[in-house]
Amino acid sequence: MPLNFDIQHRDPNSRARAGVIHTAHGDIETPNFMAVATQASVKAVTPDDLESIGLQLLIANTYHLALRPGSDKVAELGGLHEFMNWKRPLMTDSGGFQVFSLGAAIRDGVGKIADIFPEETPPSLSQPGEGRGGGVPLCKIDEDGVSFRSHLDGAIMRLDPERSIQIQHQLGADFIVAFDECTSPLDSHEYTREALRRTHRWAERCIEQHAKTKRDYQSLFGIIQGGAYRDLREESARVIGGLPFDGLCIGGSLGKSKKDMHAILDWTIPLLPESKPRHLLGIGELQDIVEGVARGIDLFDCASPTRWARNGALLVSKEIAENAEQRINISNARHAMDRSPIDPLCDCYTCHNFSRAYLHHLQRAKELNYYRLASIHNLQFMMRFMKSVRASIHSGTFAEFCSQKTNGRG
Amino acid sequence: MPLNFDIQHRDPNSRARAGVIHTAHGDIETPNFMAVATQASVKAVTPDDLESIGLQLLIANTYHLALRPGSDKVAELGGLHEFMNWKRPLMTDSGGFQVFSLGAAIRDGVGKIADIFPEETPPSLSQPGEGRGGGVPLCKIDEDGVSFRSHLDGAIMRLDPERSIQIQHQLGADFIVAFDECTSPLDSHEYTREALRRTHRWAERCIEQHAKTKRDYQSLFGIIQGGAYRDLREESARVIGGLPFDGLCIGGSLGKSKKDMHAILDWTIPLLPESKPRHLLGIGELQDIVEGVARGIDLFDCASPTRWARNGALLVSKEIAENAEQRINISNARHAMDRSPIDPLCDCYTCHNFSRAYLHHLQRAKELNYYRLASIHNLQFMMRFMKSVRASIHSGTFAEFCSQKTNGRG
Repeated sequence: MPLNFDIQHRDPNSRARAGVIHTAHGDIETPNFMAVATQASVKAVTPDDLESIGLQLLIANTYHLALRPGSDKVAELGGLHEFMNWKRPLMTDSGGFQVFSLGAAIRDGVGKIADIFPEETPPSLSQPGEGRGGGVPLCKIDEDGVSFRSHLDGAIMRLDPERSIQIQHQLGADFIVAFDECTSPLDSHEYTREALRRTHRWAERCIEQHAKTKRDYQSLFGIIQGGAYRDLREESARVIGGLPFDGLCIGGSLGKSKKDMHAILDWTIPLLPESKPRHLLGIGELQDIVEGVARGIDLFDCASPTRWARNGALLVSKEIAENAEQRINISNARHAMDRSPIDPLCDCYTCHNFSRAYLHHLQRAKELNYYRLASIHNLQFMMRFMKSVRASIHSGTFAEFCSQKTNGRG
Repeated sequence: MPLNFDIQHRDPNSRARAGVIHTAHGDIETPNFMAVATQASVKAVTPDDLESIGLQLLIANTYHLALRPGSDKVAELGGLHEFMNWKRPLMTDSGGFQVFSLGAAIRDGVGKIADIFPEETPPSLSQPGEGRGGGVPLCKIDEDGVSFRSHLDGAIMRLDPERSIQIQHQLGADFIVAFDECTSPLDSHEYTREALRRTHRWAERCIEQHAKTKRDYQSLFGIIQGGAYRDLREESARVIGGLPFDGLCIGGSLGKSKKDMHAILDWTIPLLPESKPRHLLGIGELQDIVEGVARGIDLFDCASPTRWARNGALLVSKEIAENAEQRINISNARHAMDRSPIDPLCDCYTCHNFSRAYLHHLQRAKELNYYRLASIHNLQFMMRFMKSVRASIHSGTFAEFCSQKTNGRG
């Protein structure tokens, strides 16, 4: 049985809503944030850590797992849940993001919001353009699908709608995603429309394939594209929103700024069916989550909280943050003699057991324990943050929550 | 109150003995193995992991911690136990090993047993000689002490007997170690004797300093040197064994082969007082532990089990091992589809939760979780191994234990 979405409260002043998605592997309270397990592993954090922290959903990657270890192998090993020993719901993306990150992102030297360089691009590949473009794309798109040159060994790997869905059926995640083309924020209206209409044709092929080889509990999400072009986003929302998907993702280029992203959500979401969960792909900054929830988003995923952690940027209460993003930089000398935890208000394992001084030391000494302790903290922060978002919607105080959170941000 | 060593059973056929060392931070059953926490962190394994695994003692490093974060800072932060949140007994070595690993080891391109290249030498430093010597030593020895050039930033750092002991008092470990010169297996009899007698003069200065600035619960271990020269080992055993140390380490070059190491133990140990715990520094292969215990060693430390783990070499029961060292190489393709745990007889967290196939995948994908899961397994193996060593001594079956363990090793 695919997902069952129960919307429990709607915010009267925005499009925010709170509810529960029921799945075969357990419930997901919404709005929620999922951790990224690209290669069937959240970096430096084990499944039981994630359960203790309160993660209810993880997202793994079709392209990466199809290359290594191979989706047929994962299927033979009992599917992704058993392989990685994660008992709660799982999502896989379709490989469509890699059409961008290994393609136009390298060519153009941009991220899905144009001023952020694509962080997922392997460092060796980002050398040529160094964020200024000019690199050689590792994939080639045609009407039928996409040919990738493997970032691991250069071998050719083919993904098309049917193959992406079959791979995701083999991996066995609860939520799987239609194969699409994620375009570049620098793509023209003409090219973005061409890509969009191809993606719409692919969407129907995904639905057909899904009916043939899905496991009973798997739900299929469609992806809305269209870049930062209003007419294309509206067209995509109508087309994808009108197909028999179980859930909907807002994907693709989100424009040249956060403002563009907000506009895209404002154009798109009112056109979508109310009853289906909506996932904003690859977005995870606190302020972006609040803005997304206010516009009707239910699910978020992003590698940033764990990546920030590994780089020394730890999430804290606004009052003790060093910047507007609510982070401190643990490598800063000011923490070297600080016996207090990262955040005195945090109830995570790391804050219970270790001081800033010790984490500062571990980070500078590049000790492996650092990566786990820091990642646990940032993920627990995200879970507490999402809980307070949900609580404010349930209690009818989401507007106050937003004004607190946006306080002092100009 | 310093340590109190209660020897409970002696093996009638060898010098093996089993007992308990009582310390202010808890008991240590002997013979035992301690994990290495060079920079106040066992690589990839947190203190509560170590407690669950059953580690009773860790060893941290004076040279490394004096450079970063600094022993005065650790003292101000409450001492090493509090800094790293480890509640059980701790040992620190004196920096004497770095006199070798950053000195003669680089010059000669050897480890403390001549056919093993020093694994602690930073890779960048081991380049010049690539195990064949010819590198530029990073320390200079004089009668009074040793001047190091920091491997971190090139700054000059001075260690002498008084300073090493003061640093160790600041760090606050339960067991601290006299500052010595660890010589090279390639050093001549003449040089080894000169170094040995200097080390003996340093031993008396360490004892004097210890009396002045120790914390009540700290015990001081002496180190016996002398390379692979019988007369020098015997001289050192008599001199160091006759000084008022609380425990004794067998240190320094252990010759050119395992056979030399056994001879050194056979010459030395009969000359030592029965009542003091004996620690064989830096040795941790299973067979070496058995040989050491049979010759009267109570304590072992070695970075190898966690280093093996990180490199893919996992300890297993003899029946399922791929080599005489009782290991499998998890990166081997034969494990890619293996749904069984590393070792079906193992009760560690990793074996309870993850398959060889998954660990194989994590290791090949260089996922950070791999390092923790593999290290937990190898340390738990070591603890189970030491427990069976102890049980065999207590039950009078150590001879059978040895013959089982040496079976099939030629």
